Amino acid sequence: MIRHTRNAFLDGRLTICQPAKGYRAGVDPVLLAASIPATKGQSVLELGCGVGTASLCLGHRVRGLALSGVELQEDYAQFARCNAAENGQSLAVFCADLTNLPSELRQKRFDHVIANPPYFDRQASTVAQDRGREVALGEDTPLDAWIETASKRLAPKGFATFIHRAERLPDLLSAMMLRLGSIEVLPLQPRVGRDANLVLVRARKGGRAAFRLHAPVLLHEGRAHDGDRESYTPRVRRVLRDGDALPFLEHPEKT
Amino acid sequence: MIRHTRNAFLDGRLTICQPAKGYRAGVDPVLLAASIPATKGQSVLELGCGVGTASLCLGHRVRGLALSGVELQEDYAQFARCNAAENGQSLAVFCADLTNLPSELRQKRFDHVIANPPYFDRQASTVAQDRGREVALGEDTPLDAWIETASKRLAPKGFATFIHRAERLPDLLSAMMLRLGSIEVLPLQPRVGRDANLVLVRARKGGRAAFRLHAPVLLHEGRAHDGDRESYTPRVRRVLRDGDALPFLEHPEKT
Repeated sequence: MIRHTRNAFLDGRLTICQPAKGYRAGVDPVLLAASIPATKGQSVLELGCGVGTASLCLGHRVRGLALSGVELQEDYAQFARCNAAENGQSLAVFCADLTNLPSELRQKRFDHVIANPPYFDRQASTVAQDRGREVALGEDTPLDAWIETASKRLAPKGFATFIHRAERLPDLLSAMMLRLGSIEVLPLQPRVGRDANLVLVRARKGGRAAFRLHAPVLLHEGRAHDGDRESYTPRVRRVLRDGDALPFLEHPEKT
Repeated sequence: MIRHTRNAFLDGRLTICQPAKGYRAGVDPVLLAASIPATKGQSVLELGCGVGTASLCLGHRVRGLALSGVELQEDYAQFARCNAAENGQSLAVFCADLTNLPSELRQKRFDHVIANPPYFDRQASTVAQDRGREVALGEDTPLDAWIETASKRLAPKGFATFIHRAERLPDLLSAMMLRLGSIEVLPLQPRVGRDANLVLVRARKGGRAAFRLHAPVLLHEGRAHDGDRESYTPRVRRVLRDGDALPFLEHPEKT
């Protein structure tokens, strides 16, 4: 098997094995999972599920979901299956291109479609050396195709939720406007006063509500990185450590 | 002449006459003007200039600009001319449809195009009774046409800046993506934790920078309206009262 590491998520409530080299799950899939308003008995499809981190975080918080994932790369899909088993969850993983889903998935409609599409890491100055990391971070499939597949697989009134770099917001919105409604954006802001670096964007199949731009969620306290000290705000710490939800709501709390 | 009122803007630094009934300028044009990064000697075209509030606020803060405005309704255009004269400013006002500009404007390119397009007041439960107010608040000209005209009239590297209701952000971004680049959004948030109600959106002709979603500007202090007491945050009070700039910058201040 590929050399891998075992990593604790949600303060050890979830153990995720992933390749030692290549794309590695960070906080993004955890934040995505926390934002999904799924309830017991609903179905969820994750596009580009990687090693399954987002789906398994969601399955941990909301019991009784029917979870499915699509992953292009066979080794990541295999890790996702193992991770589901190891955490006592049921996750149906399909190794497939999201623009060409297997008929088993094409016959289903889902209450939620979620995705953390690949994006170039702007911190990295060169193209990723590792092929797995390159596919996971690069953009072989246009963002529009992700939204199109999400829309097609959603049940009426179902929700599509994406997490992505803030700089892709115009592309996300343009694609969603064509096929979905009731779009909402929850910006994730690294520190007070700073530009959003990530956005959670949700839209609803057949939704007709006006667009909403929510107040940003502040990720870190303080105005600059303070050495090795963990600096997450209390609200985000509860999401990352305790598995709390991160709902798309107007909230009176500052953090 | 139409019955009108004289209103003080920028703490009395500017006097604006406007129809007593119908669309009346509020803080939106003042915030728009404050956000424009114009410098002495540059040219500015305002689309849908109404009685000239935004252009004259900008002309007050930045001296030596060449200001032009287009307004569909003759009586508002006339007020804009009078307001310019009364405040000792030069503003060339053209009464025209922005989709059919006079040749004098079509032969020019501008460093800045600014607009506060009409939008329905969601507070109002019925269509505005007044025709002037209806044209100013309703949307006879599609938003896309505003962006198209702005783009056509911009000089290379010129900036288009719009203020609009936050719910129109997807439409603004979609239209801007087709014709402009380096798009930035500055959300205006009524109170801490609340959804943005207005957005300032800027794009650049020929710009190639990544999209940026800035931290919101907080308009009011406190979590609820506190009677008649003015509740603007210090930063916004400086804009509305002292005529300060409101730049699209990452800012370390909370307010």
